Amino acid sequence: MPSLKSFFSSSSSASSTPTAKPITEKKTVKEIPVSKKESSKMGCKCRSKKSEPVNEISVKEDSCCCSKQTAESSSTCCGSKNKESDSDDNNDSLVISSHPEHPANLICEFCKLFYNNGWVTGTGGGISVKKDDNIYLAPSGVQKERMLPTNIFVMSMNSKEYIRKPLNLKPSACTPLFMAAYTMRNAGACIHTHSQNAVMCTLLFDKVFEISSIEQIKALPKITEPGNMWYSDKLIIPIIENTEREEELETSLRKAIEEYPSATAVLVRRHGIYVWGETVWKAKIYNEAIDYLLELAVKMKQMGIPTVKEN
Amino acid sequence: MPSLKSFFSSSSSASSTPTAKPITEKKTVKEIPVSKKESSKMGCKCRSKKSEPVNEISVKEDSCCCSKQTAESSSTCCGSKNKESDSDDNNDSLVISSHPEHPANLICEFCKLFYNNGWVTGTGGGISVKKDDNIYLAPSGVQKERMLPTNIFVMSMNSKEYIRKPLNLKPSACTPLFMAAYTMRNAGACIHTHSQNAVMCTLLFDKVFEISSIEQIKALPKITEPGNMWYSDKLIIPIIENTEREEELETSLRKAIEEYPSATAVLVRRHGIYVWGETVWKAKIYNEAIDYLLELAVKMKQMGIPTVKEN
Amino acid sequence: MPSLKSFFSSSSSASSTPTAKPITEKKTVKEIPVSKKESSKMGCKCRSKKSEPVNEISVKEDSCCCSKQTAESSSTCCGSKNKESDSDDNNDSLVISSHPEHPANLICEFCKLFYNNGWVTGTGGGISVKKDDNIYLAPSGVQKERMLPTNIFVMSMNSKEYIRKPLNLKPSACTPLFMAAYTMRNAGACIHTHSQNAVMCTLLFDKVFEISSIEQIKALPKITEPGNMWYSDKLIIPIIENTEREEELETSLRKAIEEYPSATAVLVRRHGIYVWGETVWKAKIYNEAIDYLLELAVKMKQMGIPTVKEN
Amino acid sequence: MPSLKSFFSSSSSASSTPTAKPITEKKTVKEIPVSKKESSKMGCKCRSKKSEPVNEISVKEDSCCCSKQTAESSSTCCGSKNKESDSDDNNDSLVISSHPEHPANLICEFCKLFYNNGWVTGTGGGISVKKDDNIYLAPSGVQKERMLPTNIFVMSMNSKEYIRKPLNLKPSACTPLFMAAYTMRNAGACIHTHSQNAVMCTLLFDKVFEISSIEQIKALPKITEPGNMWYSDKLIIPIIENTEREEELETSLRKAIEEYPSATAVLVRRHGIYVWGETVWKAKIYNEAIDYLLELAVKMKQMGIPTVKEN
Repeated sequence: MPSLKSFFSSSSSASSTPTAKPITEKKTVKEIPVSKKESSKMGCKCRSKKSEPVNEISVKEDSCCCSKQTAESSSTCCGSKNKESDSDDNNDSLVISSHPEHPANLICEFCKLFYNNGWVTGTGGGISVKKDDNIYLAPSGVQKERMLPTNIFVMSMNSKEYIRKPLNLKPSACTPLFMAAYTMRNAGACIHTHSQNAVMCTLLFDKVFEISSIEQIKALPKITEPGNMWYSDKLIIPIIENTEREEELETSLRKAIEEYPSATAVLVRRHGIYVWGETVWKAKIYNEAIDYLLELAVKMKQMGIPTVKEN
Repeated sequence: MPSLKSFFSSSSSASSTPTAKPITEKKTVKEIPVSKKESSKMGCKCRSKKSEPVNEISVKEDSCCCSKQTAESSSTCCGSKNKESDSDDNNDSLVISSHPEHPANLICEFCKLFYNNGWVTGTGGGISVKKDDNIYLAPSGVQKERMLPTNIFVMSMNSKEYIRKPLNLKPSACTPLFMAAYTMRNAGACIHTHSQNAVMCTLLFDKVFEISSIEQIKALPKITEPGNMWYSDKLIIPIIENTEREEELETSLRKAIEEYPSATAVLVRRHGIYVWGETVWKAKIYNEAIDYLLELAVKMKQMGIPTVKEN
Repeated sequence: MPSLKSFFSSSSSASSTPTAKPITEKKTVKEIPVSKKESSKMGCKCRSKKSEPVNEISVKEDSCCCSKQTAESSSTCCGSKNKESDSDDNNDSLVISSHPEHPANLICEFCKLFYNNGWVTGTGGGISVKKDDNIYLAPSGVQKERMLPTNIFVMSMNSKEYIRKPLNLKPSACTPLFMAAYTMRNAGACIHTHSQNAVMCTLLFDKVFEISSIEQIKALPKITEPGNMWYSDKLIIPIIENTEREEELETSLRKAIEEYPSATAVLVRRHGIYVWGETVWKAKIYNEAIDYLLELAVKMKQMGIPTVKEN
Repeated sequence: MPSLKSFFSSSSSASSTPTAKPITEKKTVKEIPVSKKESSKMGCKCRSKKSEPVNEISVKEDSCCCSKQTAESSSTCCGSKNKESDSDDNNDSLVISSHPEHPANLICEFCKLFYNNGWVTGTGGGISVKKDDNIYLAPSGVQKERMLPTNIFVMSMNSKEYIRKPLNLKPSACTPLFMAAYTMRNAGACIHTHSQNAVMCTLLFDKVFEISSIEQIKALPKITEPGNMWYSDKLIIPIIENTEREEELETSLRKAIEEYPSATAVLVRRHGIYVWGETVWKAKIYNEAIDYLLELAVKMKQMGIPTVKEN
């Protein structure tokens, strides 16, 4: 009987090479170059484009079988094998810790929580945490509720290069978006979800999402001045238009962050939301508070109640 | 005091013999013949039809007490007893494994997950995984969240005969439908749910379910060409009409698979959905992504928002 | 510092004596007499009526702190103490078993599940299982998700007398309703929930709940003839009017069971649903399938879709 | 590499000082004075107002990283360090107990449950339990599902002074509201949630929430006379207007409690609900029953069904 190894890696290569779609927008991913040496070690090339050479980062998410691997199968994915997976220069020490609040552990814990909340599903969504000079990033295409610390990428904030890249996995297409929050807002963590409340609000609101005079607003920061918002303050979250490729969102996301200096989140039309905070805990709390308000706004719209209260 | 054995098997035989209903459609189940020898060993005959001899497979689901059996009660179901339940020729080794990703273990894990998601309830729904030449199938009538690896049927892809049949259990009526995905699409796994989002969409859409320009669409494959769909692509899932007997769906399901070569799922009106994928992980991800889109579509329809965006 | 014992029993006696409300309907509870000797041992008399002597069973539910008791506090409830709680004549052996499918264990497991499903909340709802000649009954007023096997009442089917009564707890007011299913339909288990889907359907339908041509209907039995319903069959569940006291429902429940011989459930207007089955597993499956259909029916009504399909 | 300590406390001080907003209502918090000595030991001053000196209690909630601390990080929060955290005079013995029903343990357990029910999210909501002469209070700004017994404040009912204040944490702004239930109604516990069902009902009802003739009403007490409500009784919960600061609600909350002597809860417009009960278990049951009724009322309003039945 063939081993499980071949079972779990079978048939994925056949359908996993995407065809090219013209990139109409100027590429803006260059500040996160993937070093050629590391790139060449990545096992999962099955989805790299045929018609033009592109940065790995611009490749769309796929759905690997890589998470929850056992020792036996850990060196294979999508049909290729790598012997270097346990080598020291992969910097496993950056993600292995018994501390429950180590970024690699927290990312896995939060992904499970977000999956259970319906915010990330079918590999959608992502999360990143900054610790000191390091950016920890959930990989692309892994089922969120099954993520392991060893699946986590680590990028140096200074060099903008990966100092840890799990073999066989690809960096998240969200990376340039997360970097915008880190560099422009000095965020400590950034969360991206496909929350249906977020998507619905982008269908029900035009340029910005607005709500006022709901107690839960007080959980959110003012940003432009110290402290949290007040009950009667109006929360405004900009909505940017979606693009064919996630990384193409970077330009408009950066523009929205500049134009809305008091926002701690940006909605993406028909897509989802990016939320960041000073620490991983604050990012989590802001995300929960905002999703609560988005959910409430949908219900208010359904009942014909305006989301902004006339005072 | 009578033993628990008699308690859990009592009174189910009285009401479990269905009456016949004329089969108006040509039977199409013959490619999965149940060997006469094996059939005669199956304990649960209480639901076989009186008026005409039919293949076990065409019998409707019932609700056995068979799952979560203890050693003591494992050889009884629906009032009958079998001594052969632990015999080697039942091929228990095909379903007993300590590997968490063994098909028999994954099927049980996923059924629990799907039950918690509300996708399978009251014995409805099912799942099947292909490993090498073997098809692993959840049985009929067992409560999904209580399934055990020993409840799993195994069929040979080559011979189309069962190489493992749990005593006292019946094969799922979904089997011929799952086989269509395996033979026509070379699927690695197939999932069937009674998701309310699926049923609602079959009530809100006519011949096909259509949605476009939602980010989550990118989690789904193009099928007819390599790679995943793009954000602005239109996802089309055919809707076939339901039939009195699940196995009677096979003809129209096969026709839909032929007519919609880029579909990785088929909706069944007032019934649910069949989703398949290249591997068990991809099938799971596709099912999650599609259910997300079905749920969103119901909400959009409620708010009067078209599901297909004019570009 | 005072002991925890006094903490958890404090202040409940003050507000727990209900005032009388005239019983306008003929009492029908006499077939389940509570033996005078046992009644006098019950600790929780705080809710017995002042103005007229009534059977304990006709007293409304209250909210004891009795579940999840520790050894220390197990003999106190609502301010009274009992030394007999561990005596052999309380028949603890009837409810203590290591077998996970023992009725007392299953009742506790299902109550937790139903609580998580939102079907029983705030002490509402109940469940009963028949094993041989014994009826196992969840007590009144205990928080469903915290129930312990030692909280379970046991009644003899033959003598209609309790052969086990947990001290300090009261029998459920559902008891005469459950008995109707046992005596009139030879049920193996009976479930009562306050499901919001059930309540909504009693507000949206008149004399009966009706739905047809939904696959999930096939999980339900025909009752009047062997086998399960077919896809195109019409499921009809009678709706009876609610009464001030739960036990006053008995007359109309029995009438509905007689008038709808093919029903395996009765809805109670603005209250909830009673579902029974041949075994505990079938009752659970029927309850899940019916709640699925009630939920779907509410959604169909919201979208203006008739629940009964014209063929 | 910097320690995790600095990681989790970084960058929160920058944005956590709120600006002043004029307090237009007479302050009513003076019955819970925070002793100057204790106040000066509190680490988390980052949110104290700049423009005017105010009682700690009137400061809005913030989002600390304090919960789930490890031994290593337990003495730091928001950038400050305290060595006294393990000192005996902090009265840890008041909150450390192996008894699962000790108030400190129950508060943590219930906060997790309420988080999972969506009633408290993003640090919103709170709970307090009275045991003998002591009031146990969940702190401000801690993520509810991660609360630890050592995060709990304890106040003496007699002296109205804190006899335990966790270093680095702030008392909940709900404290004066909870005290109103303790002093005016002799409550044993008080729960505050941001339940969306509660918020929606304050948007759909005017001065009071009203519902009648729903079975679940029987789970609620009459208060003004012994016993629980009857099925056909009308449940009335007053709705008070929200204020910029939570503690400013005290006056109107006290007025509502006086004017509605049979209410065991008060709704706060666009904010949430306060529910109390004779014991912690009753408060939990009342909260569940009321939320069930609020949820049902929203659904009834959506379908055009009046919540109060004409008899």
